[in-house]
Amino acid sequence: MSKQERCCSPMLREPLSADRSVELARVFKAIGEPVRLRLLSLIASHAGGEACVCDLTGAFELSGPTISHHLKVLREAGVIEGERRGTWIYYRVCAEALAAVSDLLAPTASGVSA
Amino acid sequence: MSKQERCCSPMLREPLSADRSVELARVFKAIGEPVRLRLLSLIASHAGGEACVCDLTGAFELSGPTISHHLKVLREAGVIEGERRGTWIYYRVCAEALAAVSDLLAPTASGVSA
Repeated sequence: MSKQERCCSPMLREPLSADRSVELARVFKAIGEPVRLRLLSLIASHAGGEACVCDLTGAFELSGPTISHHLKVLREAGVIEGERRGTWIYYRVCAEALAAVSDLLAPTASGVSA
Repeated sequence: MSKQERCCSPMLREPLSADRSVELARVFKAIGEPVRLRLLSLIASHAGGEACVCDLTGAFELSGPTISHHLKVLREAGVIEGERRGTWIYYRVCAEALAAVSDLLAPTASGVSA
Protein backbone atom coordinates (compact mmCIF):
# COMPACT_ATOMS: atom_id res chain seq x y z
CA MET A 1 0.00 0.00 0.00
CA SER A 2 1.47 3.38 -0.94
CA LYS A 3 1.99 6.13 1.60
CA GLN A 4 -0.47 8.26 -0.41
CA GLU A 5 -3.19 5.65 0.08
CA ARG A 6 -2.43 5.08 3.73
CA CYS A 7 -2.93 8.65 4.82
CA CYS A 8 -3.78 11.80 3.06
CA SER A 9 -3.62 14.65 5.54
CA PRO A 10 -0.65 16.88 4.60
CA MET A 11 0.28 17.04 8.26
CA LEU A 12 0.40 13.27 8.58
CA ARG A 13 2.62 12.88 5.53
CA GLU A 14 5.37 15.28 6.62
CA PRO A 15 6.02 17.80 9.42
CA LEU A 16 4.87 21.37 8.82
CA SER A 17 7.63 23.91 8.20
CA ALA A 18 8.10 26.64 10.79
CA ASP A 19 6.71 29.28 8.37
CA ARG A 20 3.62 27.26 7.42
CA SER A 21 2.98 26.59 11.12
CA VAL A 22 2.92 30.32 11.82
CA GLU A 23 0.41 30.92 8.98
CA LEU A 24 -1.90 28.08 9.96
CA ALA A 25 -1.70 28.68 13.70
CA ARG A 26 -3.06 32.17 13.01
CA VAL A 27 -6.27 30.67 11.63
CA PHE A 28 -6.62 28.21 14.53
CA LYS A 29 -5.94 30.95 17.06
CA ALA A 30 -8.67 33.11 15.52
CA ILE A 31 -11.28 30.36 15.86
CA GLY A 32 -9.84 29.14 19.18
CA GLU A 33 -12.10 31.48 21.13
CA PRO A 34 -15.69 30.47 21.94
CA VAL A 35 -17.40 33.71 20.85
CA ARG A 36 -15.51 33.78 17.55
CA LEU A 37 -16.20 30.11 16.85
CA ARG A 38 -19.90 30.69 17.49
CA LEU A 39 -19.88 33.79 15.29
CA LEU A 40 -18.31 31.73 12.53
CA SER A 41 -20.96 29.03 12.88
CA LEU A 42 -23.76 31.64 12.97
CA ILE A 43 -22.48 33.18 9.74
CA ALA A 44 -21.91 29.79 8.06
CA SER A 45 -25.37 28.50 8.91
CA HIS A 46 -27.26 31.76 8.25
CA ALA A 47 -29.77 31.80 5.39
CA GLY A 48 -27.92 32.51 2.15
CA GLY A 49 -24.55 31.84 3.80
CA GLU A 50 -24.11 35.43 4.88
CA ALA A 51 -25.03 37.54 7.90
CA CYS A 52 -24.69 41.14 9.02
CA VAL A 53 -23.85 42.28 12.54
CA CYS A 54 -27.57 42.90 13.07
CA ASP A 55 -28.16 39.14 12.60
CA LEU A 56 -25.43 38.19 15.07
CA THR A 57 -25.63 40.39 18.14
CA GLY A 58 -28.87 38.80 19.42
CA ALA A 59 -27.08 35.50 20.13
CA PHE A 60 -24.67 37.08 22.65
CA GLU A 61 -24.83 39.18 25.75
CA LEU A 62 -22.03 41.30 24.38
CA SER A 63 -21.80 44.88 23.16
CA GLY A 64 -21.76 45.73 19.45
CA PRO A 65 -18.12 46.89 19.58
CA THR A 66 -17.07 43.59 21.20
CA ILE A 67 -18.82 41.60 18.46
CA SER A 68 -17.19 43.87 15.85
CA HIS A 69 -13.78 43.27 17.41
CA HIS A 70 -14.23 39.50 17.16
CA LEU A 71 -15.44 39.80 13.55
CA LYS A 72 -12.34 41.84 12.77
CA VAL A 73 -10.06 39.11 14.18
CA LEU A 74 -11.84 36.49 12.06
CA ARG A 75 -11.56 38.72 8.98
CA GLU A 76 -7.87 39.43 9.54
CA ALA A 77 -7.19 35.69 9.82
CA GLY A 78 -8.89 35.19 6.44
CA VAL A 79 -11.68 33.06 7.90
CA ILE A 80 -14.53 35.38 6.90
CA GLU A 81 -14.86 38.24 4.46
CA GLY A 82 -17.08 41.29 4.68
CA GLU A 83 -18.85 43.29 1.97
CA ARG A 84 -20.46 46.63 2.67
CA ARG A 85 -23.93 47.00 1.17
CA GLY A 86 -25.67 50.22 2.24
CA THR A 87 -25.58 50.63 6.00
CA TRP A 88 -24.39 47.11 6.82
CA ILE A 89 -21.38 44.92 6.26
CA TYR A 90 -22.38 41.40 5.26
CA TYR A 91 -20.06 38.59 6.30
CA ARG A 92 -19.57 35.20 4.72
CA VAL A 93 -17.24 32.34 5.48
CA CYS A 94 -14.12 31.88 3.30
CA ALA A 95 -14.78 28.25 2.44
CA GLU A 96 -11.33 27.82 0.92
CA ALA A 97 -9.52 28.91 4.09
CA LEU A 98 -11.63 26.57 6.22
CA ALA A 99 -11.19 23.69 3.79
CA ALA A 100 -7.40 24.13 4.00
CA VAL A 101 -7.31 23.82 7.79
CA SER A 102 -9.93 21.08 7.75
CA ASP A 103 -7.85 19.02 5.29
CA LEU A 104 -4.78 19.55 7.43
CA LEU A 105 -6.41 17.83 10.39
CA ALA A 106 -8.33 15.15 8.50
CA PRO A 107 -7.01 11.64 9.02
CA THR A 108 -8.06 10.84 5.43
CA ALA A 109 -8.73 13.32 2.64
CA SER A 110 -12.31 13.97 1.55
CA GLY A 111 -13.36 11.87 -1.40
CA VAL A 112 -10.97 9.06 -0.48
CA SER A 113 -12.78 6.12 0.98
CA ALA A 114 -11.37 4.62 4.13
CA MET B 1 -31.84 19.15 -3.09
CA SER B 2 -32.01 18.28 0.58
CA LYS B 3 -30.14 20.30 3.18
CA GLN B 4 -28.18 17.14 4.02
CA GLU B 5 -26.95 16.90 0.44
CA ARG B 6 -26.22 20.58 0.07
CA CYS B 7 -23.86 20.78 3.00
CA CYS B 8 -22.64 18.37 5.55
CA SER B 9 -20.45 20.23 7.99
CA PRO B 10 -22.28 20.31 11.35
CA MET B 11 -21.34 23.97 11.69
CA LEU B 12 -22.88 24.84 8.34
CA ARG B 13 -26.15 23.11 9.15
CA GLU B 14 -26.82 24.87 12.43
CA PRO B 15 -25.07 27.30 14.81
CA LEU B 16 -22.94 25.79 17.55
CA SER B 17 -24.32 26.03 21.07
CA ALA B 18 -22.41 28.18 23.55
CA ASP B 19 -21.28 25.05 25.47
CA ARG B 20 -20.07 23.20 22.37
CA SER B 21 -18.21 26.33 21.24
CA VAL B 22 -16.30 26.42 24.53
CA GLU B 23 -15.30 22.73 24.14
CA LEU B 24 -14.22 23.03 20.52
CA ALA B 25 -12.49 26.40 20.91
CA ARG B 26 -10.25 24.72 23.49
CA VAL B 27 -8.92 22.36 20.83
CA PHE B 28 -8.40 25.16 18.30
CA LYS B 29 -6.70 27.32 20.88
CA ALA B 30 -4.29 24.50 21.74
CA ILE B 31 -3.21 24.10 18.10
CA GLY B 32 -3.43 27.86 17.43
CA GLU B 33 0.19 28.33 18.41
CA PRO B 34 3.00 27.68 15.90
CA VAL B 35 5.23 25.52 18.13
CA ARG B 36 2.30 23.36 19.22
CA LEU B 37 1.02 22.97 15.68
CA ARG B 38 4.49 21.90 14.54
CA LEU B 39 4.80 19.51 17.47
CA LEU B 40 1.48 17.97 16.48
CA SER B 41 2.63 17.55 12.88
CA LEU B 42 5.98 16.09 13.99
CA ILE B 43 4.19 13.52 16.14
CA ALA B 44 1.59 12.74 13.45
CA SER B 45 4.17 12.22 10.73
CA HIS B 46 6.74 10.38 12.86
CA ALA B 47 7.51 6.77 11.99
CA GLY B 48 4.92 4.52 13.64
CA GLY B 49 2.69 7.52 14.41
CA GLU B 50 4.32 8.17 17.76
CA ALA B 51 7.24 10.18 19.06
CA CYS B 52 8.96 10.83 22.36
CA VAL B 53 10.31 14.19 23.54
CA CYS B 54 13.77 13.02 22.43
CA ASP B 55 12.46 12.88 18.83
CA LEU B 56 10.96 16.36 19.02
CA THR B 57 13.39 18.72 20.70
CA GLY B 58 15.86 18.74 17.78
CA ALA B 59 13.38 20.59 15.55
CA PHE B 60 13.22 23.63 17.86
CA GLU B 61 15.57 26.05 19.47
CA LEU B 62 13.64 25.71 22.68
CA SER B 63 14.41 24.22 26.07
CA GLY B 64 13.14 20.80 27.10
CA PRO B 65 10.78 22.26 29.72
CA THR B 66 9.26 24.61 27.11
CA ILE B 67 8.61 21.71 24.74
CA SER B 68 7.15 19.74 27.65
CA HIS B 69 4.85 22.63 28.50
CA HIS B 70 3.50 22.75 24.94
CA LEU B 71 3.02 18.97 24.91
CA LYS B 72 1.07 19.28 28.15
CA VAL B 73 -1.26 21.88 26.60
CA LEU B 74 -1.88 19.59 23.60
CA ARG B 75 -2.51 16.65 25.92
CA GLU B 76 -4.90 18.58 28.14
CA ALA B 77 -6.88 19.64 25.06
CA GLY B 78 -7.21 15.96 24.08
CA VAL B 79 -5.26 16.40 20.85
CA ILE B 80 -2.45 13.99 21.76
CA GLU B 81 -2.05 11.26 24.33
CA GLY B 82 1.06 10.10 26.07
CA GLU B 83 2.11 6.67 27.29
CA ARG B 84 5.09 6.15 29.55
CA ARG B 85 7.38 3.31 28.47
CA GLY B 86 10.55 3.08 30.51
CA THR B 87 12.30 6.44 30.71
CA TRP B 88 10.26 8.16 28.01
CA ILE B 89 6.70 9.23 27.38
CA TYR B 90 5.59 8.38 23.84
CA TYR B 91 3.03 10.69 22.28
CA ARG B 92 0.55 9.95 19.54
CA VAL B 93 -2.18 12.00 17.94
CA CYS B 94 -5.81 11.42 19.02
CA ALA B 95 -7.18 10.88 15.52
CA GLU B 96 -10.76 11.02 16.73
CA ALA B 97 -10.39 14.47 18.30
CA LEU B 98 -8.74 15.83 15.16
CA ALA B 99 -11.36 14.24 12.90
CA ALA B 100 -14.11 15.94 14.93
CA VAL B 101 -12.66 19.43 14.47
CA SER B 102 -11.73 18.68 10.87
CA ASP B 103 -15.31 17.66 10.06
CA LEU B 104 -16.62 20.76 11.76
CA LEU B 105 -14.75 23.00 9.34
CA ALA B 106 -15.16 20.89 6.20
CA PRO B 107 -17.43 22.47 3.59
CA THR B 108 -18.58 18.97 2.59
CA ALA B 109 -18.26 15.75 4.54
CA SER B 110 -15.60 13.26 3.50
CA GLY B 111 -16.88 10.65 1.13
CA VAL B 112 -19.61 12.94 -0.25
CA SER B 113 -18.80 14.08 -3.76
CA ALA B 114 -19.15 17.78 -4.47
